[in-house]
Amino acid sequence: EILAAVENLLAAGPLKGIKALVTSGPTYEPIDPVRFIGNRSSGKQGHAIAAALARLGADVTLITGPVKLPDPANMRVIHVETAREMLGTALGCLPVDVAVCAAAVADWTVSNASKEKRKKDASGQPPPIELAANPDILATLSEKGSARPRLVVGFAAETEKLLEHARAKFVRKGCDWIVANDVSPHSGTFGGDFNTVHLLTQGGAEEWPRISKADVAERLAWKIADTLKGHP
Amino acid sequence: EILAAVENLLAAGPLKGIKALVTSGPTYEPIDPVRFIGNRSSGKQGHAIAAALARLGADVTLITGPVKLPDPANMRVIHVETAREMLGTALGCLPVDVAVCAAAVADWTVSNASKEKRKKDASGQPPPIELAANPDILATLSEKGSARPRLVVGFAAETEKLLEHARAKFVRKGCDWIVANDVSPHSGTFGGDFNTVHLLTQGGAEEWPRISKADVAERLAWKIADTLKGHP
Repeated sequence: EILAAVENLLAAGPLKGIKALVTSGPTYEPIDPVRFIGNRSSGKQGHAIAAALARLGADVTLITGPVKLPDPANMRVIHVETAREMLGTALGCLPVDVAVCAAAVADWTVSNASKEKRKKDASGQPPPIELAANPDILATLSEKGSARPRLVVGFAAETEKLLEHARAKFVRKGCDWIVANDVSPHSGTFGGDFNTVHLLTQGGAEEWPRISKADVAERLAWKIADTLKGHP
Repeated sequence: EILAAVENLLAAGPLKGIKALVTSGPTYEPIDPVRFIGNRSSGKQGHAIAAALARLGADVTLITGPVKLPDPANMRVIHVETAREMLGTALGCLPVDVAVCAAAVADWTVSNASKEKRKKDASGQPPPIELAANPDILATLSEKGSARPRLVVGFAAETEKLLEHARAKFVRKGCDWIVANDVSPHSGTFGGDFNTVHLLTQGGAEEWPRISKADVAERLAWKIADTLKGHP
């Protein structure tokens, strides 16, 4: 009946005229042509948010890393692999009204990635993997300036000290909201269909009950609509 | 018509009574609970070989790393993540008549993998990723002994100097055949549906034309049947 209620409201389209950018999924950072550093983000939460925003009438661009999910309907979907590609693509989508950065972007890239497949050397020793910081997509989109989205929402995926780490990220990134979620192995969040999140805003923190990722998306989309359009 | 011809031969079942072990897909080596080192193997070739062996009547166990493919029918499928899990599972399947090691097994594991998600330190420096050699599944299965499969087939995925690297691997691993394939980015092999392979045996090297992965699997399965059962 929630779906029916939402569909009834589609005519109203609380996000009609709003441009939204959503990032989703992992990034892959190449080590060589066949190996990469990835992460366990399934893209389910980000894709669900993009779908929820589109259902509320937003004009959505979804930038996604490699996921097993089909492209959601009624939006533009751009596939990328690395954090740098994701950032470049996101900047190319500006200006937007709201950016939701749900992708699990690699903090580091491999600075000594090789063009050919790495081989063991004569000693059998593995060549070291040297890392360098990736650009910070959330912080970049949050920078003050004329192209800054009116609302920038980040995600903090943590395995411990959830709120403490999320609050530190909130301050560091300069975004407006942080959706903090527990991705420790026992939570079943990564790859699963449910999520337990806290929403951190300038006003404080809301704890949401454990609900489906679709419901997290729906609730977040409505909150975005309330904020951008003054919807009750 | 190839499929029909094969199905007509099913009654004959040239591999009836033969136990086969096939490994397929990539392995994932954890860096921490959310990050891992993976590779671009799709599992298409390994899964196709398992399916071809089963169609010829073999009793097949497929051990697969994380792939997007559905489990093939008419066989036992075991899902694993790391090279160590794959090796342990493979050893647990012995004795078999033939082992086809088509998985792209990580050469290295992360020796300093952490139980909690790694954070940047105060300096913003990434913690180093220390690597250690993984066990060699192909070489282990090829070791002389009463449990050695009668036929051990390995794969060599190379981006350059294909035959040179494959021949070196052949000698180093002690297996009976090597299927050498070009996985350089221009080849489109990783993730694609076609493959260009050389089959290296004690007798020399056969160059196979560029054919579908299903056809590579079919041809390899028939060659295995010829060898194990003296089929013409």
